[in-house]
Amino acid sequence: MRNDETPVDGVDDLKYDDRGLIPAIVQEESSGQVLMLAYMNRESLARTLETGRTWFYSRSRQELWPKGETSGHVQRVARVLYDCDADTLLVQVEQVGVACHTGEMSCFYRELRRGEGG
Amino acid sequence: MRNDETPVDGVDDLKYDDRGLIPAIVQEESSGQVLMLAYMNRESLARTLETGRTWFYSRSRQELWPKGETSGHVQRVARVLYDCDADTLLVQVEQVGVACHTGEMSCFYRELRRGEGG
Repeated sequence: MRNDETPVDGVDDLKYDDRGLIPAIVQEESSGQVLMLAYMNRESLARTLETGRTWFYSRSRQELWPKGETSGHVQRVARVLYDCDADTLLVQVEQVGVACHTGEMSCFYRELRRGEGG
Repeated sequence: MRNDETPVDGVDDLKYDDRGLIPAIVQEESSGQVLMLAYMNRESLARTLETGRTWFYSRSRQELWPKGETSGHVQRVARVLYDCDADTLLVQVEQVGVACHTGEMSCFYRELRRGEGG
């Protein structure tokens, strides 16, 4: 992930939704653990590629959001993959600290379970 | 994953978007490989939980879609996790055959890359 102005192959193929967003799955490279899903627009993807840290677009705050800005729990980008439909990203990272604001490593810490009484 | 009518803890907490959909990341349980992202509505999630195979909602065809129906490349569900915002699912599966219609194991087989000339 070089910090320069070189064009990025594949970026022009990406399809954004009607809000200009594309979902980005974040996975820890070393463990394979899926950490979170967030959304990027063109600008946050460009910043992610330029800086080697994840930037997202907050749908609730309607602004760019540098992951770990306040917590220090940044994500160092190893690579960005995209899917066969070019409408989803898979960002493989090294997670500093934990990914979830709850303090859990991954945002996916709860399971849908059949009730005990069934 | 039992095939009965027992209530599922957590299902009522889930948040669907304004189209009634929730994104579902599919990950191979054994390898940790992220295979695909697709969308579920309430009905496709219910069928997934009931049958132990993944069912999605096709946004283009506007219909329920049993994964692997024609190809035989079904996904046997090990567990369904949901995230801290309850607006994304992580479905861990055993993939029969390959996940992608291109014949690749994962839909994420391409990488955004800096151009060679840079």
